[in-house]
Amino acid sequence: MSVKQSRNGGCGGGSCSGRGASDPQDQHITDALIQIKNKIIVMSGKGGVGKSSFASNLAVALAGKGLPTGLLDVDLHGPSIAGMLGIKGLLDVSEDQQVIPKTVGDHLKVVSMQSLMQDPDQAVIWRGPAKTGIIRQFIADVRWDDLDFLIVDSPPGTGDEPLSVAQTIPGAKALIVTTPQDVALADVRKSINFCRTVNLEILGLVENMGPFACPCCGETIDPFKSRGGQITAETMGVTFLGTLPFDPQVVESCDEGRPIASSGHAGPFVDALDGVVRAIISSL
Amino acid sequence: MSVKQSRNGGCGGGSCSGRGASDPQDQHITDALIQIKNKIIVMSGKGGVGKSSFASNLAVALAGKGLPTGLLDVDLHGPSIAGMLGIKGLLDVSEDQQVIPKTVGDHLKVVSMQSLMQDPDQAVIWRGPAKTGIIRQFIADVRWDDLDFLIVDSPPGTGDEPLSVAQTIPGAKALIVTTPQDVALADVRKSINFCRTVNLEILGLVENMGPFACPCCGETIDPFKSRGGQITAETMGVTFLGTLPFDPQVVESCDEGRPIASSGHAGPFVDALDGVVRAIISSL
Repeated sequence: MSVKQSRNGGCGGGSCSGRGASDPQDQHITDALIQIKNKIIVMSGKGGVGKSSFASNLAVALAGKGLPTGLLDVDLHGPSIAGMLGIKGLLDVSEDQQVIPKTVGDHLKVVSMQSLMQDPDQAVIWRGPAKTGIIRQFIADVRWDDLDFLIVDSPPGTGDEPLSVAQTIPGAKALIVTTPQDVALADVRKSINFCRTVNLEILGLVENMGPFACPCCGETIDPFKSRGGQITAETMGVTFLGTLPFDPQVVESCDEGRPIASSGHAGPFVDALDGVVRAIISSL
Repeated sequence: MSVKQSRNGGCGGGSCSGRGASDPQDQHITDALIQIKNKIIVMSGKGGVGKSSFASNLAVALAGKGLPTGLLDVDLHGPSIAGMLGIKGLLDVSEDQQVIPKTVGDHLKVVSMQSLMQDPDQAVIWRGPAKTGIIRQFIADVRWDDLDFLIVDSPPGTGDEPLSVAQTIPGAKALIVTTPQDVALADVRKSINFCRTVNLEILGLVENMGPFACPCCGETIDPFKSRGGQITAETMGVTFLGTLPFDPQVVESCDEGRPIASSGHAGPFVDALDGVVRAIISSL
């Protein structure tokens, strides 16, 4: 059964933005989120910094520690989480019209926009207010049950979608992902200011695509420069959670639907990710 | 003088979307674009594939051939073109309230959203309809004069902003940039379908961040896999314009405000870019 048969089916348009306190969807959202201890919105100012790949690996690593974890992909235009976790097919809905997440291993539940689309190659050309409606509905209608962590893969930038996510998930904290180069950092400063403007607490900043060791000679190269994320975090008064090295295997494992954190790999990326995960857990 | 004092000043809101045939802004847009021979919208399904870096290098390379070229950055959330071309300060407006592009060298004119912002670190938290209004106004109010090429750096994805750009620039053609890995290619297929849905002709596809030669041992690595862009172009019936190698100097030169095409560099990236530029010129 397709999730399109939603109990809030009509709420994809601009009318959702004029909600009153009595909007039944607000109660559905509260009900959907009440059993979740920690909600983390993974954001980036700029696309292509490995945000979705990091969100997948973070969720897999948390679940790998036996912590019940949910992963929600709300990127309407480029949802990639389902592919990265090897999830196929549409989501099921229960008799009372709640979306049932896909399960990956023992402790991970996943809901992705990708799993709502009959044709994954179809572009979603929705204007802003429709996006707000679909994101709220999407969050309201999922049956997560008890979770220690909900990791939300937000679309990049500071537009409608991250704004809707931030406004719809009370108590969420932002985790900002960047690469070290200046062009990305300019957008990170915007993301930090965005979070502060919308009163979204910032958990910290992760620097992705750091040093790369040539597999042939072992020489270390900085494909996207170095230390920019750390310096920006310090300058802007944000916790720095760590640097993840650049590793083509991270790209390959995500393309294959098995994030590197789940695939039994060892090495510098997995070690660095574990350090980031421990920093996140200890900061909550 | 800041460009905020525009002749269409009030048109930043949702009312712009209900335009009739008599909207004077339509005439301003026609006037602004009439002296431009070729309009190319540089798009990507996914962020971070080097779209802005490619758009900058393409514009610089065209101007370097003596062809009068304009470069317009309409990414409201992460405008990066000004920084990549070392442009500082706000844009000037003429007495008749037209935006005067910044000039770079002899043949390149540049207009970027970045040059409209008093504080470049401030996040722009605009909802969809406001974005459509500002993009239309932005295109209507620039005095480009005679150009052989206008390169438009569109925001990534298939949302409000590329839709507004496509609808506002009649006769424009899309150039889609991707990296070779599957996660990016899924979004490229969406971009191609987006262009077809909104009747935007596709000039071709460029594969960026291809093979990387270790500067120490010379060994070639594919940091984001290989040939995915070419195969996707062939499968989807889109012209393949070429592969650009991954080169950390491209990142560095953009961060320094001097795109590699302008900085007297030679090497595989500049050679491959020249091939792409020639393929573009011959296809028009």
